[in-house]
Order: sequence, then C-alpha cells, then structure tokens
Amino acid sequence: MPAAIDFFFDFASPYGYLGSLRIDAVAARHGRDVVWRPFMLGAAFKETGMRPLLEQPLRGAYSRHDWLRTARRLGVPFRLPEGFPMAALAPSRAFYFIAERDAELAKAFAARVFHAYFGEGRDMSRPEAVAAEAMHLGLPAAEVLEAMKDARWKQHLKDATAAALARGVFGSPFFVVDDEPFWGNDKIPEIENWLESGGW
Amino acid sequence: MPAAIDFFFDFASPYGYLGSLRIDAVAARHGRDVVWRPFMLGAAFKETGMRPLLEQPLRGAYSRHDWLRTARRLGVPFRLPEGFPMAALAPSRAFYFIAERDAELAKAFAARVFHAYFGEGRDMSRPEAVAAEAMHLGLPAAEVLEAMKDARWKQHLKDATAAALARGVFGSPFFVVDDEPFWGNDKIPEIENWLESGGW
Repeated sequence: MPAAIDFFFDFASPYGYLGSLRIDAVAARHGRDVVWRPFMLGAAFKETGMRPLLEQPLRGAYSRHDWLRTARRLGVPFRLPEGFPMAALAPSRAFYFIAERDAELAKAFAARVFHAYFGEGRDMSRPEAVAAEAMHLGLPAAEVLEAMKDARWKQHLKDATAAALARGVFGSPFFVVDDEPFWGNDKIPEIENWLESGGW
Repeated sequence: MPAAIDFFFDFASPYGYLGSLRIDAVAARHGRDVVWRPFMLGAAFKETGMRPLLEQPLRGAYSRHDWLRTARRLGVPFRLPEGFPMAALAPSRAFYFIAERDAELAKAFAARVFHAYFGEGRDMSRPEAVAAEAMHLGLPAAEVLEAMKDARWKQHLKDATAAALARGVFGSPFFVVDDEPFWGNDKIPEIENWLESGGW
C-alpha cells in the first residue's frame, strides 16, 4: 500500500474543518490512508509571524465570506462559533489519548469535535464538552477528562506540534503526500491530481 | 455577454504570473472576458500586515517549492529572478498607459513582462527593459519611457491601487467574478466551477 497522507490541522481552524470533510474520500479513491495530526497552530504563527485571519484587515472579511461560501458549495454545515477562535488544547490532547488506543476512533472523535464546533457553533474548548463527545463514541468520559489534565498528554501535544513545525507545517490544513507539502483547503484538487498522475 | 472577470495582480508576484497564464482560457470557456488590473501589492501589505512570502520562515521555503512545482505541473517556465521581488512600478505604469490605447495590447504587454521576469528571470524593474518589451509589440519606446515618468500615470497607478483595496483586494492574484472575490492561484478550479454552475 502506498504511503499514507499526513493531515495536519488545528481544531480551531475553519479551513481545517472544511478540509477534514474531504481528505479521506480523496485519499480512499487512490488507495491511500490518512493520518490525522492535530497541532497548535499558534506555535506555528509564532514562528512565521502569521496572525489569526479575522484579525487581519481585508483578509478577515474575505475569509469569513469564503468559509460560508465553501461550506455552501460542499453542502456542509458551517457556523462561526461564539468566541472564535478557541484555544484547542483540550480536544487536541484528548485526540492523542484516544489515538493511542485506536486511530480510527480518534478520527471519528475529531470529526465529532469539528462538527460540534463549526457545524453547530458549540464551544469545544471546555474539557467537559470534549469528554461528552468521546462518551458518545463509547469512550470512558472520566478517563478522557483525566487525560486532558495529564502531563503526559500535554507533552505529547507539544511534541506533535514541534514535529509538525520540523516538517515545515505552518498552516491548517496542511497535507503531506509522498513528502510533498500542500498548504490549504484549496490545494485538495491539486492533491487529487498528484495522486491520479503519480506526481509532476 | 455576462460580466467580465477582474484580475488583480502585482508584476512581482509569482502566483500572479502563474494565474495570468490560465485565467483568460478559463474565462473564455464560459464566454467571459478578463480585465487585467495591476496594482501595488505593497500597499495592500501595509493595510493587512502581510509580508513578502520569502521573508516568512517556513512559508518562504514552501512557496519557493510550490512555485516551481506548480510551473512544472502547468508545463510553463519558471525562474526566480535575481533580486526578487522587484518593485513593479515601471511595468505597472506602462501597462495603464498602453491600456488607454488598447486593452488587448496592454494584456499582451503584461504577458511579455511576466514572461521576461518569471519565465526568463530578467530584471523588469528598469524602465528601459519595460520599454523594450513594449517596442516588440510595435509601441513607441520613447513614449512609453516618458509615460513611466509622467505624473499622470504615477497617479493613475496609485488610484488603481486604492480602487483595488477599496474592493477588498489584498493579494495577488485576486479575481472578482460576479462580485465574488477569489484570492489566490489555487482558487482557479473553484472559479471554473462557479462559472460552470452559475454560483453556489
């Protein structure tokens, strides 16, 4: 089986949410798996000097418009949550705790968190809300709550973030296919072209 | 005939160059014209706080890689000119001088400048080099040289830049289709989809 696609994202990234709804289907059409890798986008911003989109004149208004328009085109729900953007520490730590048990279950959990946050506009920065999503998947809520406070999973997320930056990741979503980096939701058609044609 | 597509770009923008090689064909397939509108991207950067790509850690290296890769995919020449990025005042002023005479000729001129700069890596910030490209199209070199120094065309470019910003333009390339803004070379497939489907 050819190498899996790495999918880097931040749970507070609208384009990360939009990308998460498509990348597995694109990969599957070409016999590829996708490994989901949440990381802290803020750490990348510190490195690059980039800033949250809505803080930027002109670009903020454009992004807000583009998120809604893209969601409409894809036929998926989108709602900008109150207090956006959240700090996504809680779901990111929980993700890696769950992924150690079961990578597919962690992906299902991430999809639920994304849907709750951007599909329904619910605050997903609170550990209790995150644990409730895990519980819906049959995971023990108390253990997930513990994991989010555990130094081990805090460190794990820090390490995952450092590893992402070391691989050149600076935005969300960010895909790595056959060692080729692709930044942004808008790159998905190009990724599909890459997979189809075996690269250029 | 349906409304023309506005194509905003800076002559020193690699993604602007790459976009310029495709947008007219995409538009023509759907019975649309394209109006080319060079502007000074630096003025937009002042507004948004964005910075030239190569100055940004991680994102700079990515962009360099992505330009070459995209050119390879499209089968077009690409060479990063020495001293990149240039200040594109000279070709931008000349463009508007030529466009007043003949919009199609101005487009042909812009295509020549882009090719000289990013296809061959030649310095196109110098008025003499710009005038030489105009001369190849049968335009009077001396008049083009004069125009680039003329307060009228300096002001014209300032006004065009202010008008672009007033329409929400903050990057290069930037397309406006039926009042819908699309930022970036990667948006071209989406623009095509918009034209095909009549919007979402």
